[in-house]
Amino acid sequence: MKTARVAYKGNIHEAIEWYGKLQLDTGAIVSEDDVVWLPPIVPQTIFALGLNYADHAAELSFNAPKEPLVFLKGPNTLIGHNRETFRPADVTYMHYECELAVVIGQSGKNIQEKDAYNYVAGYTVANDYAIRDYLENYYRPNLRVKNRDTLTPIGPWFVSADEIKNPMNLTLRTYVNDSVVQEGTTKDMIFSIPKLIAYLSSFMTLNKNDIILTGTPKGSVDTKVGDTVITEIEGIGRLKNTIISEPVYQ
Amino acid sequence: MKTARVAYKGNIHEAIEWYGKLQLDTGAIVSEDDVVWLPPIVPQTIFALGLNYADHAAELSFNAPKEPLVFLKGPNTLIGHNRETFRPADVTYMHYECELAVVIGQSGKNIQEKDAYNYVAGYTVANDYAIRDYLENYYRPNLRVKNRDTLTPIGPWFVSADEIKNPMNLTLRTYVNDSVVQEGTTKDMIFSIPKLIAYLSSFMTLNKNDIILTGTPKGSVDTKVGDTVITEIEGIGRLKNTIISEPVYQ
Repeated sequence: MKTARVAYKGNIHEAIEWYGKLQLDTGAIVSEDDVVWLPPIVPQTIFALGLNYADHAAELSFNAPKEPLVFLKGPNTLIGHNRETFRPADVTYMHYECELAVVIGQSGKNIQEKDAYNYVAGYTVANDYAIRDYLENYYRPNLRVKNRDTLTPIGPWFVSADEIKNPMNLTLRTYVNDSVVQEGTTKDMIFSIPKLIAYLSSFMTLNKNDIILTGTPKGSVDTKVGDTVITEIEGIGRLKNTIISEPVYQ
Repeated sequence: MKTARVAYKGNIHEAIEWYGKLQLDTGAIVSEDDVVWLPPIVPQTIFALGLNYADHAAELSFNAPKEPLVFLKGPNTLIGHNRETFRPADVTYMHYECELAVVIGQSGKNIQEKDAYNYVAGYTVANDYAIRDYLENYYRPNLRVKNRDTLTPIGPWFVSADEIKNPMNLTLRTYVNDSVVQEGTTKDMIFSIPKLIAYLSSFMTLNKNDIILTGTPKGSVDTKVGDTVITEIEGIGRLKNTIISEPVYQ
Protein backbone atom coordinates (compact mmCIF):
# COMPACT_ATOMS: atom_id res chain seq x y z
CA MET A 1 0.00 0.00 0.00
CA LYS A 2 1.26 3.47 -0.88
CA THR A 3 -0.29 6.37 1.00
CA ALA A 4 0.28 10.10 1.05
CA ARG A 5 -0.80 12.91 3.35
CA VAL A 6 -1.99 16.00 1.55
CA ALA A 7 -3.71 19.28 2.25
CA TYR A 8 -6.63 19.98 -0.07
CA LYS A 9 -8.87 23.03 0.26
CA GLY A 10 -7.76 23.61 3.84
CA ASN A 11 -8.15 20.06 5.16
CA ILE A 12 -5.63 17.29 5.66
CA HIS A 13 -6.36 13.96 3.96
CA GLU A 14 -4.82 10.59 3.47
CA ALA A 15 -4.59 9.79 -0.23
CA ILE A 16 -3.71 6.93 -2.55
CA GLU A 17 -2.54 6.86 -6.16
CA TRP A 18 -5.29 6.66 -8.78
CA TYR A 19 -4.10 6.45 -12.40
CA GLY A 20 -1.70 9.38 -12.12
CA LYS A 21 -4.10 11.29 -9.89
CA LEU A 22 -4.85 11.09 -6.18
CA GLN A 23 -7.86 9.60 -4.48
CA LEU A 24 -8.54 11.28 -1.15
CA ASP A 25 -9.96 9.48 1.87
CA THR A 26 -13.28 11.17 1.02
CA GLY A 27 -13.33 9.31 -2.30
CA ALA A 28 -12.70 12.46 -4.34
CA ILE A 29 -10.26 12.23 -7.25
CA VAL A 30 -7.96 15.25 -7.50
CA SER A 31 -4.94 16.25 -9.53
CA GLU A 32 -1.51 15.98 -7.87
CA ASP A 33 -1.01 19.66 -8.62
CA ASP A 34 -4.11 20.67 -6.68
CA VAL A 35 -2.84 19.42 -3.33
CA VAL A 36 -0.06 20.44 -0.97
CA TRP A 37 1.99 17.35 -0.23
CA LEU A 38 2.79 16.90 3.46
CA PRO A 39 5.31 14.56 5.08
CA PRO A 40 3.61 11.15 4.73
CA ILE A 41 4.21 10.39 8.42
CA VAL A 42 3.69 12.62 11.46
CA PRO A 43 6.92 11.71 13.20
CA GLN A 44 7.71 10.91 16.79
CA THR A 45 11.51 10.93 17.14
CA ILE A 46 13.54 11.48 13.95
CA PHE A 47 16.95 9.77 13.89
CA ALA A 48 19.56 10.47 11.22
CA LEU A 49 22.76 8.65 10.43
CA GLY A 50 26.14 10.17 9.67
CA LEU A 51 28.63 8.37 7.43
CA ASN A 52 26.58 5.19 7.02
CA TYR A 53 27.81 4.40 3.51
CA ALA A 54 31.44 3.33 3.14
CA ASP A 55 31.88 5.16 -0.19
CA HIS A 56 30.57 8.43 1.33
CA ALA A 57 32.85 8.12 4.37
CA ALA A 58 35.81 7.50 2.01
CA GLU A 59 34.80 10.48 -0.16
CA LEU A 60 35.05 12.66 2.96
CA SER A 61 38.35 10.98 3.96
CA PHE A 62 36.90 9.35 7.05
CA ASN A 63 37.33 5.81 8.24
CA ALA A 64 34.11 3.86 8.44
CA PRO A 65 32.60 4.37 11.91
CA LYS A 66 32.75 1.49 14.40
CA GLU A 67 29.29 2.16 15.78
CA PRO A 68 26.35 4.00 14.21
CA LEU A 69 26.74 7.81 14.31
CA VAL A 70 23.22 8.91 15.14
CA PHE A 71 21.81 12.36 15.73
CA LEU A 72 18.26 13.64 16.19
CA LYS A 73 16.30 16.09 14.06
CA GLY A 74 13.34 18.26 15.00
CA PRO A 75 9.95 18.06 13.23
CA ASN A 76 10.47 21.66 12.06
CA THR A 77 12.94 20.34 9.47
CA LEU A 78 10.40 18.25 7.54
CA ILE A 79 8.48 19.35 4.46
CA GLY A 80 6.57 17.41 1.82
CA HIS A 81 7.04 16.62 -1.85
CA ASN A 82 7.03 19.47 -4.40
CA ARG A 83 7.85 22.02 -1.70
CA GLU A 84 10.68 24.52 -1.35
CA THR A 85 13.77 24.38 0.85
CA PHE A 86 15.47 27.53 2.11
CA ARG A 87 19.13 28.05 1.33
CA PRO A 88 20.53 30.73 3.68
CA ALA A 89 21.75 33.70 1.62
CA ASP A 90 25.14 33.79 3.38
CA VAL A 91 26.37 30.22 2.94
CA THR A 92 28.65 28.58 0.39
CA TYR A 93 27.81 24.89 0.59
CA MET A 94 24.44 23.20 0.72
CA HIS A 95 24.52 19.49 -0.05
CA TYR A 96 21.60 17.20 -0.87
CA GLU A 97 21.61 13.70 0.63
CA CYS A 98 19.30 11.01 -0.78
CA GLU A 99 18.31 8.67 2.05
CA LEU A 100 16.04 5.72 2.66
CA ALA A 101 13.72 6.61 5.57
CA VAL A 102 12.58 3.68 7.71
CA VAL A 103 9.30 4.15 9.59
CA ILE A 104 8.85 2.22 12.85
CA GLY A 105 5.47 0.51 13.26
CA GLN A 106 5.36 -0.56 16.90
CA SER A 107 7.16 0.07 20.18
CA GLY A 108 10.13 -2.08 21.08
CA LYS A 109 13.21 -2.23 23.27
CA ASN A 110 16.15 -4.63 23.07
CA ILE A 111 15.00 -5.77 19.63
CA GLN A 112 17.19 -8.50 18.16
CA GLU A 113 18.47 -8.13 14.59
CA LYS A 114 16.56 -11.21 13.47
CA ASP A 115 13.29 -9.68 14.66
CA ALA A 116 13.97 -6.13 13.51
CA TYR A 117 11.79 -6.13 10.38
CA ASN A 118 8.75 -6.94 12.54
CA TYR A 119 9.11 -3.40 13.87
CA VAL A 120 9.24 -1.72 10.46
CA ALA A 121 5.95 -0.30 9.18
CA GLY A 122 7.38 0.86 5.88
CA TYR A 123 9.56 3.31 4.02
CA THR A 124 9.72 6.68 2.36
CA VAL A 125 12.31 8.85 0.64
CA ALA A 126 14.14 11.72 2.34
CA ASN A 127 16.58 14.39 1.28
CA ASP A 128 18.60 15.23 4.37
CA TYR A 129 20.21 18.51 3.25
CA ALA A 130 23.29 19.79 5.09
CA ILE A 131 24.62 23.34 5.30
CA ARG A 132 28.27 22.38 5.19
CA ASP A 133 29.61 25.82 6.12
CA TYR A 134 28.72 25.18 9.75
CA LEU A 135 30.01 21.61 9.93
CA GLU A 136 32.84 21.41 12.46
CA ASN A 137 32.18 17.80 13.44
CA TYR A 138 30.99 15.13 10.99
CA TYR A 139 30.20 12.70 13.78
CA ARG A 140 27.28 14.69 15.15
CA PRO A 141 26.55 17.79 13.10
CA ASN A 142 25.35 20.85 14.96
CA LEU A 143 21.83 22.25 14.60
CA ARG A 144 22.88 24.98 12.16
CA VAL A 145 23.95 22.25 9.71
CA LYS A 146 21.01 19.89 9.97
CA ASN A 147 18.11 21.32 11.95
CA ARG A 148 16.96 24.37 9.98
CA ASP A 149 13.35 24.68 8.86
CA THR A 150 12.55 22.91 5.52
CA LEU A 151 15.93 21.17 5.37
CA THR A 152 14.44 17.68 5.13
CA PRO A 153 11.98 17.05 2.31
CA ILE A 154 10.32 13.67 2.82
CA GLY A 155 7.82 11.65 0.78
CA PRO A 156 5.90 11.64 -1.46
CA TRP A 157 4.66 8.19 -0.41
CA PHE A 158 4.71 6.05 2.65
CA VAL A 159 5.19 2.54 1.23
CA SER A 160 4.22 -0.27 3.55
CA ALA A 161 6.90 -2.87 4.31
CA ASP A 162 5.06 -5.72 2.55
CA GLU A 163 5.64 -3.97 -0.81
CA ILE A 164 9.43 -3.94 -0.50
CA LYS A 165 10.98 -7.36 -0.92
CA ASN A 166 14.51 -6.38 0.13
CA PRO A 167 15.09 -2.85 1.46
CA MET A 168 18.83 -3.62 1.60
CA ASN A 169 19.03 -3.86 -2.19
CA LEU A 170 17.52 -0.67 -3.59
CA THR A 171 19.05 1.86 -5.97
CA LEU A 172 19.17 5.47 -4.76
CA ARG A 173 19.59 8.36 -7.22
CA THR A 174 19.66 12.12 -6.94
CA TYR A 175 19.01 14.40 -9.92
CA VAL A 176 19.80 18.11 -9.95
CA ASN A 177 17.99 19.85 -12.81
CA ASP A 178 17.44 16.45 -14.47
CA SER A 179 21.10 15.30 -14.38
CA VAL A 180 22.02 12.30 -12.24
CA VAL A 181 24.49 13.54 -9.60
CA GLN A 182 24.38 10.75 -7.01
CA GLU A 183 23.85 7.03 -7.44
CA GLY A 184 24.22 4.26 -4.92
CA THR A 185 22.57 1.24 -3.42
CA THR A 186 21.28 0.48 0.05
CA LYS A 187 23.45 -2.68 -0.12
CA ASP A 188 26.39 -0.42 0.74
CA MET A 189 25.08 0.71 4.13
CA ILE A 190 27.69 0.09 6.82
CA PHE A 191 25.01 -0.57 9.46
CA SER A 192 22.02 -2.33 7.90
CA ILE A 193 18.41 -1.58 8.87
CA PRO A 194 18.28 -4.55 11.33
CA LYS A 195 21.59 -3.46 12.88
CA LEU A 196 20.36 0.12 13.33
CA ILE A 197 17.12 -1.02 14.97
CA ALA A 198 19.01 -3.41 17.29
CA TYR A 199 21.53 -0.68 18.17
CA LEU A 200 19.02 2.07 18.94
CA SER A 201 16.65 -0.19 20.83
CA SER A 202 19.51 -1.52 22.97
CA PHE A 203 19.44 1.72 24.99
CA MET A 204 16.08 3.33 24.22
CA THR A 205 12.55 2.45 23.25
CA LEU A 206 11.68 2.82 19.60
CA ASN A 207 8.10 3.97 19.08
CA LYS A 208 5.49 3.92 16.32
CA ASN A 209 6.21 6.65 13.76
CA ASP A 210 9.82 7.08 14.77
CA ILE A 211 11.74 7.66 11.54
CA ILE A 212 15.30 6.53 10.87
CA LEU A 213 17.10 8.34 8.03
CA THR A 214 19.66 5.72 7.12
CA GLY A 215 22.45 7.83 5.57
CA THR A 216 23.54 8.73 2.06
CA PRO A 217 25.99 7.23 -0.45
CA LYS A 218 28.78 9.22 -2.10
CA GLY A 219 28.25 11.96 -4.66
CA SER A 220 26.92 14.82 -2.56
CA VAL A 221 27.76 18.24 -4.00
CA ASP A 222 26.61 21.83 -3.72
CA THR A 223 23.18 22.97 -4.85
CA LYS A 224 22.15 26.52 -5.70
CA VAL A 225 19.07 28.68 -5.49
CA GLY A 226 16.69 27.73 -8.30
CA ASP A 227 17.88 24.12 -8.53
CA THR A 228 15.29 21.39 -8.74
CA VAL A 229 16.47 18.39 -6.75
CA ILE A 230 14.92 14.94 -7.05
CA THR A 231 15.86 12.13 -4.70
CA GLU A 232 14.60 8.78 -5.87
CA ILE A 233 14.64 5.30 -4.40
CA GLU A 234 13.70 2.24 -6.41
CA GLY A 235 10.17 1.10 -5.55
CA ILE A 236 9.70 3.79 -2.88
CA GLY A 237 9.30 7.07 -4.71
CA ARG A 238 10.61 10.16 -6.41
CA LEU A 239 10.75 13.21 -4.15
CA LYS A 240 10.99 16.61 -5.83
CA ASN A 241 12.11 19.81 -4.16
CA THR A 242 13.21 23.29 -5.23
CA ILE A 243 15.76 25.54 -3.55
CA ILE A 244 14.92 29.14 -2.75
CA SER A 245 16.90 31.84 -0.98
CA GLU A 246 16.42 32.67 2.69
CA PRO A 247 17.27 36.20 3.78
CA VAL A 248 19.67 36.41 6.74
CA TYR A 249 18.79 38.74 9.60
CA GLN A 250 21.35 37.92 12.24
CA MET B 1 -0.05 29.79 38.02
CA LYS B 2 1.50 26.42 38.80
CA THR B 3 0.08 23.40 37.00
CA ALA B 4 0.91 19.72 36.92
CA ARG B 5 -0.09 16.85 34.67
CA VAL B 6 -0.95 13.68 36.54
CA ALA B 7 -2.47 10.28 35.93
CA TYR B 8 -5.20 9.37 38.40
CA LYS B 9 -7.24 6.17 38.19
CA GLY B 10 -6.26 5.67 34.56
CA ASN B 11 -7.01 9.18 33.27
CA ILE B 12 -4.72 12.13 32.63
CA HIS B 13 -5.60 15.38 34.37
CA GLU B 14 -4.27 18.88 34.77
CA ALA B 15 -3.89 19.69 38.46
CA ILE B 16 -3.10 22.61 40.75
CA GLU B 17 -1.73 22.77 44.29
CA TRP B 18 -4.36 22.78 47.05
CA TYR B 19 -2.99 23.08 50.60
CA GLY B 20 -0.40 20.33 50.18
CA LYS B 21 -2.77 18.24 48.08
CA LEU B 22 -3.73 18.37 44.42
CA GLN B 23 -6.93 19.65 42.89
CA LEU B 24 -7.66 17.90 39.61
CA ASP B 25 -9.37 19.61 36.67
CA THR B 26 -12.51 17.69 37.68
CA GLY B 27 -12.54 19.55 41.02
CA ALA B 28 -11.57 16.45 43.00
CA ILE B 29 -8.99 16.86 45.79
CA VAL B 30 -6.46 14.03 45.89
CA SER B 31 -3.27 13.26 47.75
CA GLU B 32 0.03 13.74 45.91
CA ASP B 33 0.84 10.11 46.64
CA ASP B 34 -2.26 8.89 44.85
CA VAL B 35 -1.29 10.23 41.46
CA VAL B 36 1.42 9.40 38.95
CA TRP B 37 3.19 12.63 38.09
CA LEU B 38 3.75 13.12 34.37
CA PRO B 39 6.02 15.62 32.63
CA PRO B 40 4.09 18.90 33.07
CA ILE B 41 4.43 19.70 29.36
CA VAL B 42 3.92 17.46 26.32
CA PRO B 43 6.97 18.60 24.43
CA GLN B 44 7.49 19.45 20.82
CA THR B 45 11.27 19.69 20.25
CA ILE B 46 13.52 19.29 23.32
CA PHE B 47 16.80 21.23 23.20
CA ALA B 48 19.60 20.73 25.72
CA LEU B 49 22.69 22.79 26.34
CA GLY B 50 26.21 21.52 26.91
CA LEU B 51 28.68 23.49 29.03
CA ASN B 52 26.43 26.52 29.56
CA TYR B 53 27.78 27.41 33.01
CA ALA B 54 31.34 28.74 33.21
CA ASP B 55 32.08 26.93 36.49
CA HIS B 56 30.93 23.59 35.05
CA ALA B 57 33.03 24.07 31.89
CA ALA B 58 36.05 24.92 34.09
CA GLU B 59 35.36 21.87 36.30
CA LEU B 60 35.62 19.71 33.16
CA SER B 61 38.74 21.62 32.01
CA PHE B 62 37.01 23.13 28.98
CA ASN B 63 37.14 26.69 27.76
CA ALA B 64 33.75 28.38 27.75
CA PRO B 65 32.10 27.76 24.36
CA LYS B 66 31.89 30.63 21.86
CA GLU B 67 28.43 29.71 20.67
CA PRO B 68 25.74 27.67 22.39
CA LEU B 69 26.38 23.90 22.27
CA VAL B 70 22.91 22.55 21.62
CA PHE B 71 21.71 19.00 21.10
CA LEU B 72 18.25 17.47 20.82
CA LYS B 73 16.59 14.90 23.06
CA GLY B 74 13.75 12.52 22.26
CA PRO B 75 10.46 12.48 24.21
CA ASN B 76 11.29 8.91 25.35
CA THR B 77 13.80 10.41 27.80
CA LEU B 78 11.21 12.31 29.88
CA ILE B 79 9.55 11.08 33.05
CA GLY B 80 7.68 12.91 35.78
CA HIS B 81 8.28 13.73 39.44
CA ASN B 82 8.61 10.87 41.97
CA ARG B 83 9.46 8.39 39.23
CA GLU B 84 12.43 6.09 38.70
CA THR B 85 15.39 6.45 36.37
CA PHE B 86 17.24 3.43 35.00
CA ARG B 87 20.95 3.18 35.58
CA PRO B 88 22.42 0.60 33.16
CA ALA B 89 23.96 -2.26 35.15
CA ASP B 90 27.24 -2.12 33.22
CA VAL B 91 28.25 1.54 33.59
CA THR B 92 30.55 3.33 36.03
CA TYR B 93 29.42 6.96 35.88
CA MET B 94 25.92 8.40 35.93
CA HIS B 95 25.78 12.12 36.69
CA TYR B 96 22.75 14.20 37.67
CA GLU B 97 22.42 17.68 36.19
CA CYS B 98 20.02 20.20 37.74
CA GLU B 99 18.70 22.45 34.95
CA LEU B 100 16.20 25.23 34.48
CA ALA B 101 13.80 24.18 31.69
CA VAL B 102 12.33 27.00 29.61
CA VAL B 103 9.00 26.30 27.90
CA ILE B 104 8.23 28.19 24.69
CA GLY B 105 4.73 29.66 24.46
CA GLN B 106 4.34 30.72 20.84
CA SER B 107 6.01 30.21 17.46
CA GLY B 108 8.76 32.57 16.41
CA LYS B 109 11.68 32.92 14.04
CA ASN B 110 14.46 35.52 14.12
CA ILE B 111 13.42 36.58 17.61
CA GLN B 112 15.49 39.47 18.96
CA GLU B 113 16.99 39.20 22.46
CA LYS B 114 14.93 42.14 23.67
CA ASP B 115 11.69 40.38 22.66
CA ALA B 116 12.70 36.88 23.79
CA TYR B 117 10.70 36.72 27.01
CA ASN B 118 7.50 37.33 25.03
CA TYR B 119 8.02 33.82 23.67
CA VAL B 120 8.47 32.16 27.06
CA ALA B 121 5.36 30.52 28.52
CA GLY B 122 7.05 29.46 31.74
CA TYR B 123 9.49 27.19 33.47
CA THR B 124 9.98 23.83 35.10
CA VAL B 125 12.83 21.85 36.68
CA ALA B 126 14.77 19.12 34.87
CA ASN B 127 17.43 16.63 35.81
CA ASP B 128 19.34 15.91 32.61
CA TYR B 129 21.25 12.77 33.65
CA ALA B 130 24.30 11.71 31.63
CA ILE B 131 25.87 8.27 31.34
CA ARG B 132 29.43 9.52 31.27
CA ASP B 133 30.98 6.17 30.27
CA TYR B 134 29.84 6.74 26.69
CA LEU B 135 30.85 10.38 26.44
CA GLU B 136 33.52 10.76 23.78
CA ASN B 137 32.59 14.33 22.84
CA TYR B 138 31.31 16.90 25.33
CA TYR B 139 30.20 19.25 22.60
CA ARG B 140 27.38 17.05 21.41
CA PRO B 141 26.96 13.93 23.49
CA ASN B 142 25.91 10.78 21.68
CA LEU B 143 22.53 9.13 22.21
CA ARG B 144 23.89 6.49 24.58
CA VAL B 145 24.87 9.29 26.97
CA LYS B 146 21.75 11.43 26.88
CA ASN B 147 18.89 9.79 25.05
CA ARG B 148 18.06 6.70 27.07
CA ASP B 149 14.54 6.12 28.39
CA THR B 150 13.81 7.82 31.77
CA LEU B 151 17.07 9.80 31.74
CA THR B 152 15.33 13.17 32.07
CA PRO B 153 12.98 13.64 35.01
CA ILE B 154 11.06 16.89 34.60
CA GLY B 155 8.54 18.74 36.80
CA PRO B 156 6.75 18.60 39.14
CA TRP B 157 5.21 21.95 38.15
CA PHE B 158 4.93 24.09 35.10
CA VAL B 159 5.24 27.62 36.49
CA SER B 160 3.94 30.38 34.24
CA ALA B 161 6.39 33.15 33.34
CA ASP B 162 4.46 35.87 35.20
CA GLU B 163 5.33 34.17 38.52
CA ILE B 164 9.09 34.41 38.00
CA LYS B 165 10.42 37.93 38.30
CA ASN B 166 13.94 37.21 37.11
CA PRO B 167 14.70 33.72 35.75
CA MET B 168 18.35 34.76 35.40
CA ASN B 169 18.75 35.01 39.18
CA LEU B 170 17.55 31.72 40.66
CA THR B 171 19.38 29.33 42.94
CA LEU B 172 19.71 25.71 41.72
CA ARG B 173 20.44 22.88 44.14
CA THR B 174 20.79 19.13 43.87
CA TYR B 175 20.44 16.81 46.87
CA VAL B 176 21.50 13.18 46.86
CA ASN B 177 19.98 11.30 49.80
CA ASP B 178 19.27 14.67 51.48
CA SER B 179 22.83 16.06 51.21
CA VAL B 180 23.42 19.12 49.04
CA VAL B 181 25.81 18.05 46.27
CA GLN B 182 25.40 20.83 43.70
CA GLU B 183 24.60 24.50 44.14
CA GLY B 184 24.66 27.30 41.62
CA THR B 185 22.71 30.19 40.20
CA THR B 186 21.19 30.85 36.81
CA LYS B 187 23.13 34.15 36.87
CA ASP B 188 26.17 32.10 35.85
CA MET B 189 24.76 30.88 32.53
CA ILE B 190 27.17 31.69 29.72
CA PHE B 191 24.32 32.13 27.22
CA SER B 192 21.29 33.66 28.93
CA ILE B 193 17.71 32.66 28.14
CA PRO B 194 17.23 35.60 25.72
CA LYS B 195 20.52 34.75 23.96
CA LEU B 196 19.53 31.10 23.59
CA ILE B 197 16.14 32.01 22.14
CA ALA B 198 17.71 34.52 19.73
CA TYR B 199 20.38 31.99 18.70
CA LEU B 200 18.03 29.05 18.07
CA SER B 201 15.40 31.14 16.31
CA SER B 202 18.04 32.67 14.02
CA PHE B 203 18.10 29.42 12.03
CA MET B 204 14.91 27.58 12.95
CA THR B 205 11.37 28.21 14.10
CA LEU B 206 10.74 27.78 17.80
CA ASN B 207 7.28 26.37 18.52
CA LYS B 208 4.83 26.24 21.39
CA ASN B 209 5.89 23.57 23.91
CA ASP B 210 9.44 23.41 22.70
CA ILE B 211 11.58 22.97 25.82
CA ILE B 212 15.08 24.35 26.32
CA LEU B 213 17.16 22.68 29.05
CA THR B 214 19.59 25.48 29.83
CA GLY B 215 22.59 23.60 31.22
CA THR B 216 23.93 22.78 34.67
CA PRO B 217 26.39 24.45 37.07
CA LYS B 218 29.40 22.67 38.56
CA GLY B 219 29.18 19.92 41.12
CA SER B 220 27.99 16.95 39.10
CA VAL B 221 29.15 13.60 40.49
CA ASP B 222 28.25 9.94 40.26
CA THR B 223 24.95 8.56 41.55
CA LYS B 224 24.24 4.95 42.44
CA VAL B 225 21.31 2.55 42.40
CA GLY B 226 19.04 3.34 45.33
CA ASP B 227 19.96 7.03 45.50
CA THR B 228 17.19 9.56 45.87
CA VAL B 229 18.05 12.64 43.83
CA ILE B 230 16.27 15.97 44.21
CA THR B 231 16.88 18.85 41.81
CA GLU B 232 15.44 22.09 43.07
CA ILE B 233 15.14 25.56 41.59
CA GLU B 234 14.08 28.56 43.66
CA GLY B 235 10.46 29.43 42.97
CA ILE B 236 10.04 26.71 40.34
CA GLY B 237 9.98 23.41 42.19
CA ARG B 238 11.60 20.44 43.80
CA LEU B 239 11.85 17.39 41.55
CA LYS B 240 12.43 14.02 43.19
CA ASN B 241 13.68 10.90 41.47
CA THR B 242 15.07 7.50 42.46
CA ILE B 243 17.67 5.46 40.65
CA ILE B 244 17.07 1.79 39.88
CA SER B 245 19.14 -0.75 38.00
CA GLU B 246 18.55 -1.62 34.37
CA PRO B 247 19.57 -5.09 33.23
CA VAL B 248 21.80 -5.13 30.16
CA TYR B 249 20.93 -7.52 27.34
CA GLN B 250 23.32 -6.53 24.60
